[in-house]
Amino acid sequence: MTNDALTELLSEIRDGSVSVENGIERLRDLPYMDLGHTKFDLHRALRNGFPEVVYGEGKTPEQVGEIFTRMGGHANILATRVSREMADHVLSVCPDAEYNAMGRALTLARKPIAYREGEIAIVTAGTSDLGVAEEARVTCEMLGSHARVTSDVGVAGIHRLLDRLDDIRKARVIIVIAGMEGALSSVIGGLVSQPIIAVPTSVGYGASFSGLSALLGMLTSCASGVTVVNIDNGFGAACAACKINNL
Amino acid sequence: MTNDALTELLSEIRDGSVSVENGIERLRDLPYMDLGHTKFDLHRALRNGFPEVVYGEGKTPEQVGEIFTRMGGHANILATRVSREMADHVLSVCPDAEYNAMGRALTLARKPIAYREGEIAIVTAGTSDLGVAEEARVTCEMLGSHARVTSDVGVAGIHRLLDRLDDIRKARVIIVIAGMEGALSSVIGGLVSQPIIAVPTSVGYGASFSGLSALLGMLTSCASGVTVVNIDNGFGAACAACKINNL
Amino acid sequence: MTNDALTELLSEIRDGSVSVENGIERLRDLPYMDLGHTKFDLHRALRNGFPEVVYGEGKTPEQVGEIFTRMGGHANILATRVSREMADHVLSVCPDAEYNAMGRALTLARKPIAYREGEIAIVTAGTSDLGVAEEARVTCEMLGSHARVTSDVGVAGIHRLLDRLDDIRKARVIIVIAGMEGALSSVIGGLVSQPIIAVPTSVGYGASFSGLSALLGMLTSCASGVTVVNIDNGFGAACAACKINNL
Amino acid sequence: MTNDALTELLSEIRDGSVSVENGIERLRDLPYMDLGHTKFDLHRALRNGFPEVVYGEGKTPEQVGEIFTRMGGHANILATRVSREMADHVLSVCPDAEYNAMGRALTLARKPIAYREGEIAIVTAGTSDLGVAEEARVTCEMLGSHARVTSDVGVAGIHRLLDRLDDIRKARVIIVIAGMEGALSSVIGGLVSQPIIAVPTSVGYGASFSGLSALLGMLTSCASGVTVVNIDNGFGAACAACKINNL
Amino acid sequence: MTNDALTELLSEIRDGSVSVENGIERLRDLPYMDLGHTKFDLHRALRNGFPEVVYGEGKTPEQVGEIFTRMGGHANILATRVSREMADHVLSVCPDAEYNAMGRALTLARKPIAYREGEIAIVTAGTSDLGVAEEARVTCEMLGSHARVTSDVGVAGIHRLLDRLDDIRKARVIIVIAGMEGALSSVIGGLVSQPIIAVPTSVGYGASFSGLSALLGMLTSCASGVTVVNIDNGFGAACAACKINNL
Amino acid sequence: MTNDALTELLSEIRDGSVSVENGIERLRDLPYMDLGHTKFDLHRALRNGFPEVVYGEGKTPEQVGEIFTRMGGHANILATRVSREMADHVLSVCPDAEYNAMGRALTLARKPIAYREGEIAIVTAGTSDLGVAEEARVTCEMLGSHARVTSDVGVAGIHRLLDRLDDIRKARVIIVIAGMEGALSSVIGGLVSQPIIAVPTSVGYGASFSGLSALLGMLTSCASGVTVVNIDNGFGAACAACKINNL
Amino acid sequence: MTNDALTELLSEIRDGSVSVENGIERLRDLPYMDLGHTKFDLHRALRNGFPEVVYGEGKTPEQVGEIFTRMGGHANILATRVSREMADHVLSVCPDAEYNAMGRALTLARKPIAYREGEIAIVTAGTSDLGVAEEARVTCEMLGSHARVTSDVGVAGIHRLLDRLDDIRKARVIIVIAGMEGALSSVIGGLVSQPIIAVPTSVGYGASFSGLSALLGMLTSCASGVTVVNIDNGFGAACAACKINNL
Amino acid sequence: MTNDALTELLSEIRDGSVSVENGIERLRDLPYMDLGHTKFDLHRALRNGFPEVVYGEGKTPEQVGEIFTRMGGHANILATRVSREMADHVLSVCPDAEYNAMGRALTLARKPIAYREGEIAIVTAGTSDLGVAEEARVTCEMLGSHARVTSDVGVAGIHRLLDRLDDIRKARVIIVIAGMEGALSSVIGGLVSQPIIAVPTSVGYGASFSGLSALLGMLTSCASGVTVVNIDNGFGAACAACKINNL
Repeated sequence: MTNDALTELLSEIRDGSVSVENGIERLRDLPYMDLGHTKFDLHRALRNGFPEVVYGEGKTPEQVGEIFTRMGGHANILATRVSREMADHVLSVCPDAEYNAMGRALTLARKPIAYREGEIAIVTAGTSDLGVAEEARVTCEMLGSHARVTSDVGVAGIHRLLDRLDDIRKARVIIVIAGMEGALSSVIGGLVSQPIIAVPTSVGYGASFSGLSALLGMLTSCASGVTVVNIDNGFGAACAACKINNL
Repeated sequence: MTNDALTELLSEIRDGSVSVENGIERLRDLPYMDLGHTKFDLHRALRNGFPEVVYGEGKTPEQVGEIFTRMGGHANILATRVSREMADHVLSVCPDAEYNAMGRALTLARKPIAYREGEIAIVTAGTSDLGVAEEARVTCEMLGSHARVTSDVGVAGIHRLLDRLDDIRKARVIIVIAGMEGALSSVIGGLVSQPIIAVPTSVGYGASFSGLSALLGMLTSCASGVTVVNIDNGFGAACAACKINNL
Repeated sequence: MTNDALTELLSEIRDGSVSVENGIERLRDLPYMDLGHTKFDLHRALRNGFPEVVYGEGKTPEQVGEIFTRMGGHANILATRVSREMADHVLSVCPDAEYNAMGRALTLARKPIAYREGEIAIVTAGTSDLGVAEEARVTCEMLGSHARVTSDVGVAGIHRLLDRLDDIRKARVIIVIAGMEGALSSVIGGLVSQPIIAVPTSVGYGASFSGLSALLGMLTSCASGVTVVNIDNGFGAACAACKINNL
Repeated sequence: MTNDALTELLSEIRDGSVSVENGIERLRDLPYMDLGHTKFDLHRALRNGFPEVVYGEGKTPEQVGEIFTRMGGHANILATRVSREMADHVLSVCPDAEYNAMGRALTLARKPIAYREGEIAIVTAGTSDLGVAEEARVTCEMLGSHARVTSDVGVAGIHRLLDRLDDIRKARVIIVIAGMEGALSSVIGGLVSQPIIAVPTSVGYGASFSGLSALLGMLTSCASGVTVVNIDNGFGAACAACKINNL
Repeated sequence: MTNDALTELLSEIRDGSVSVENGIERLRDLPYMDLGHTKFDLHRALRNGFPEVVYGEGKTPEQVGEIFTRMGGHANILATRVSREMADHVLSVCPDAEYNAMGRALTLARKPIAYREGEIAIVTAGTSDLGVAEEARVTCEMLGSHARVTSDVGVAGIHRLLDRLDDIRKARVIIVIAGMEGALSSVIGGLVSQPIIAVPTSVGYGASFSGLSALLGMLTSCASGVTVVNIDNGFGAACAACKINNL
Repeated sequence: MTNDALTELLSEIRDGSVSVENGIERLRDLPYMDLGHTKFDLHRALRNGFPEVVYGEGKTPEQVGEIFTRMGGHANILATRVSREMADHVLSVCPDAEYNAMGRALTLARKPIAYREGEIAIVTAGTSDLGVAEEARVTCEMLGSHARVTSDVGVAGIHRLLDRLDDIRKARVIIVIAGMEGALSSVIGGLVSQPIIAVPTSVGYGASFSGLSALLGMLTSCASGVTVVNIDNGFGAACAACKINNL
Repeated sequence: MTNDALTELLSEIRDGSVSVENGIERLRDLPYMDLGHTKFDLHRALRNGFPEVVYGEGKTPEQVGEIFTRMGGHANILATRVSREMADHVLSVCPDAEYNAMGRALTLARKPIAYREGEIAIVTAGTSDLGVAEEARVTCEMLGSHARVTSDVGVAGIHRLLDRLDDIRKARVIIVIAGMEGALSSVIGGLVSQPIIAVPTSVGYGASFSGLSALLGMLTSCASGVTVVNIDNGFGAACAACKINNL
Repeated sequence: MTNDALTELLSEIRDGSVSVENGIERLRDLPYMDLGHTKFDLHRALRNGFPEVVYGEGKTPEQVGEIFTRMGGHANILATRVSREMADHVLSVCPDAEYNAMGRALTLARKPIAYREGEIAIVTAGTSDLGVAEEARVTCEMLGSHARVTSDVGVAGIHRLLDRLDDIRKARVIIVIAGMEGALSSVIGGLVSQPIIAVPTSVGYGASFSGLSALLGMLTSCASGVTVVNIDNGFGAACAACKINNL
């Protein structure tokens, strides 16, 4: 609740145009919508600059379907971690939703998205990182930033990266996605001046420990100014990148 | 090496104004300066937008002293993780350096710093996080962004944070510094729309495991768009924040 | 074995009303019932104030079915971690049992439960924590305390929590259930004076490490007086809460 | 801020006895005191039922000394993790403070403490756990509950524990402190019906991993209703115990 | 190869009754049998006092079947970690083998087993530990020691254990099997003077971390003289117990 | 790009036989082939001495099939971590590929392989390590080195190893593959003078922690000169061994 | 309390030779001695077959000194983890104690020790393991078993071990002490038929992780029948070995 | 003991030129020298191709001094992990030893070292890795291979590495030393065809976890054919590199 809104409300109470009881209620009455299983925060968009986001894992197809049908008139919706089975159900009740199978993301964009200038570069070390990259790309698009994916430019073939560097440098923000040793963010971090958000992925086996090696590698990157999000969290990286691009 | 520079160099070779041998050498001759123990990259500032940075830990006072005296004429210098003893030595050979004891940072700024508009907010959960906060603040200032520290607004007394929220919201980028459970970044992340960079600190004992609890807490933050740097890495958070503020 | 019982038994031996051989046996004869696979402790209720509890995981449906049919006449029964398949079998042999699918709990309450005054608040950060919350709620009810669940009030939307605070404060004990960074217990801990029992959940991915991040976060909570139980242990939290409510 | 206080303030604004500007300020003006390095929350006692608490680690003797001299007139003070050196300084500027060397706790109690009925039992497995036990005992006393320490009754000599059981059972709440395998809380948990708060300690070597073995052991206790706090956190256990005893 | 055998062989070479070439071969020719996928060491029984043992996991039913049919005439066989499916195959080709489903052990004992005096006690904390207990029991029997299982005497109901103590004390060696906090070995260790071998089990969830909590708890047992084997390793514990019983 | 190539290119530019624009392009134009999902580096063989390698995990059968049909004319191909299902598909579209089921490797060798002199010994501790051994063996063969597998010579039967030692010593490089405690590399390391590459395997259970115990054991080997690769990484060990054999 | 003692006591109560009150007291009155800081269990020797043992770490020199002077008349004493400084103090107040500096053990043996037949072999991998070996040796001697140390026979020089094997085989029980990869217990386990107790040591650096590598290696030993104690726990290994030797 | 030696010995026994008793002894009499605290293996050089190596940590200056004076006539000696204090003592008793302070290595080379052709490149990411690099370099020289150190070419400034690449490529084997994210080995691995041995270092803080991040990063390197040694193990890397160079 902003300062201005508070000033206005208190003035109305003083004027008597809002009763004390009503004032309490309004101070209370925060703008969310309760679906029973989920509380929806309709004004979050205003507050954080984001549309409604649904984390699909741990929800039933029916719950997500209800969210899309009930909320779809009020706001654009992005659902992440959506299995093919869940997508099929939602599409059956909400046919204008769109499913991105590689990124496991389901979107509904009935309201036009106002795109900002400035592109976000999404760079992956290997082809196995593409699922996370797609989650990030779809999220960027839903949040109003254009994004482009450059894939398979891992550090063991440094020339592949150098070859694409000029393209990457055109972006305002760079998301770097890598598993295994996660070294790509350090190398790119030494070659560009843009903010870099690193996403470790759970790609790999053995001492990768489900993404731990990449996570630690990115956190201890010798390139200054690299920040990191959770393992496989393409969505979170995109949120951060869009907040930066919105500046 | 930029595209333009490459074009120019190749043109000069074609014109004969640069010999082939010389061309090879120039393609080789990357712009750094070798002090024996350390290679300095004089043009890094141009490339990354940063002054020279020295990581004090693991270096001798003499090595850092030499860096300050030899490099101080060419670039501003920021040395981090500088002990009191190291600082005393450097100040004895380079008296116009300045030591920030709480942030363990040593700076030399003979060249004027061009400050950008827009402030960076540095918010800490407890007073024990102030050392990391000072490292971040000094770094921001050296990199050309003004920064302000708000301390001791941890989540166990949420009203202390709410009280300072309007101030915090004035910043373009927010650095959140917390040890223990590292929850502050999640709470602030839900209240503001700016990019947030979270710094876990090694403050705490027992199950804090030297910052691991805060690190994991920040990485799994339920507030979308929070990015994380290494434990106690106030410097890295400031680098990232300044790159964002430079946009 | 209490002091009084010991005094009485020894007196009877001295009087000759109990033989030495018999005395040894009675000192031995602790009040449990042996089903072969499981030893049941019929007087545990007296000793600990709890009904019989069965941990379903690792048992066969047949074993649990036998427990319900054999023990159901002697005591109320609460079985936790009961799969749908196990529940179906038990219900087929013991039709008056009740299955709570979300909480994966099976109950049989042929004896009336004497409810204490005072309510237990069960608060969850996200909708994915509801299974653990239901396990806790059912346990509370079986142990004689009323409980109410408030869900989806995680710290990234702090206003949703503040809105429900008055309700939460009406309880005598508060169980806080959260995955990811587990910050909810710290925030509530700073806002109420009741005892708080925190339950980390395995909700999340990547650096959540199956609940480790929430566990560490809750253990290092900056709010004093928060205690913690095992990951996903809604049952244990409820036991502790009821012991407190029984005071 | 309570509901009542809000109602009253809004009524005053409606009446005109409080101006809008003033109302904003009062809603803002949360009751803490700023010492520069530390923000003190004078009304926390009211809100949480606790006196002021200072965590000594990471603070300078001078800072803690200032807190005692500045705050000592307003509230009782408990400082934990206070080294002998820090204690000496504080006692030199605040001679009526008291230092408990074993518990590393410094207290100042100029205001009379109102003790509740009901005792808290503090039980330790070994003599090496006595420091944590003392921290817990002093904290209980400062928070208004009497506490008694029973030490060296670890599970490898179960008869020593059984011998003391009647005494332990007289308490309303039991704090169990143990390092190594932390089994004491399970054994006591099976013998009493009171709430038990377990404190793992960092006593031990090798596979104790600085308290990790005891922590995991207590969290996975087969005795239902045991809750756990951070390693060596005698203070936190006492806070929780007193909150329970206050009911 | 023992000293005596070496002396004899060298004497035979000196006498000319064994040629040099033959001597080399015999020094080489160690007594095992090669099935291609597995090398079998027929004299291991002599050297280590054990029959042939097959670790079923990672082998195909066909491989284990071949071992039983090929080796069954030379030695008794014990196969551990045998699934129901593998057992069915082996029984189809070797009908006199016996399958212990709970202990997942398959045995073939065509040669009479010479039993030593002295019994091994196998004690479990919970019913879920019975699979590991059965693996241990079957192994003991195959190795020539009688074993008896006492189950479900975990420390949270200490009287159940005390009740069975006299029986347990009759054994020469005690195997203690427990998951969760693994405290049972400490308690028994303080009550008996026999050698104790502790087996942590992977029973449990959350902070049990698949047996890690019990493993650490047993390793740090405050009862002196408890030794530990790998998680769920009932076989290894039985081997050690039988080696001791053979003394 | 080698020094010579650079000299030649620059000379051609000076001569005008290559235009500046073309020069830029050629400096850029690195020799790989883009299949959309995967970038192929056709000259990697020249640069690193290896054929094309495909990591099967995380790819679809169709993608791998396309790689074999499209790339098979240009280079030999080795695909690792190939499931039976994936192999079936590839063989249906590329019938002259060969599948090694135990090593889960798929190969296509239309171009003759030039074998170097010198053999690589692959030694395994147990039969369960054979899958990793086969992956290593197939890789060696594809990279131009002959390899021989010696299996089931683990340290608990040291004579089995000593018996095979002369054979093992004939190799130029030794790959040692072991799970559990991984001790085999230390023992062999003390007996031979060849370079040893150790591969920990995920064979085992409990405290093996999916290969961690073997990995740590091999890294801390008391035999000097043992180097280690990732858990189960037979392919990587073979690559290293062949690079050494190529010297 | 044994069965016989219980029978006797109950008979006396029936006979009237022991009053009921007295009987209660005697059942209660467990035979330990309370020094304030430490409870001493004078009859533990009878119950567990051990003399009094003091764990020096975490105690003050004065406390240990008091234990030696007060308890020295009642029982032999063994104190472990005794620093030079602590030893000096104890020797000043109890001059007939003996300090073993390498094993950091302090002993007082005023009562004659009755030695059993049968020797315990203590075998170390490296010279750095000698401290732990000495702790084990002194403990064995105090517990009534002769012990002999064979050092520096690590697996990287297998012939050194084979050379000493006949000596080692003469023992009834073998304690194997090793750091780093801890492989020695597996190799010896395959060569002898005696019970083996393995002690991992914290010798090493890096991936040794303070003994973790050796601990995991020993727990996952491929030699059956090896049991393990805590890192650096020479005392515990000796206790177990003596319990076995006492059979 | 080689096959030839065995043949010869057995022939001598047959001939009677060696008695049976003597034969046993000679089979026993392995060629090492016992200094009490350390067993020295004089023929290890023959067997493994190495001089005598002493690991200084955990030894006293006097022990190392004795080794140098006693063994110095028989073999060259390399002592690693030698503190300045230890070096001073050894130099006082063995003045022709040489101390390399940065590499903490002490050498005595009275016998001429026969150098092989072929150089070993030692490449470090940062200046803080120089200590490990020096340990590796000195070891290489003692083992008969020339080595050259290239330092401070970490991946965050990729051009510094590319600039030195031609030099690095001249070596036969490459040792790559890096802390933090350890990415340097992946980048070099993609640029050269030589065998690469990677050494993670404990340089760094926070999520470096004392070298764990670099260790995991190097083990999961996406460049095939990189092998890894223990954290900070410059000595081990050099041993492996020299074994390779000796081929």
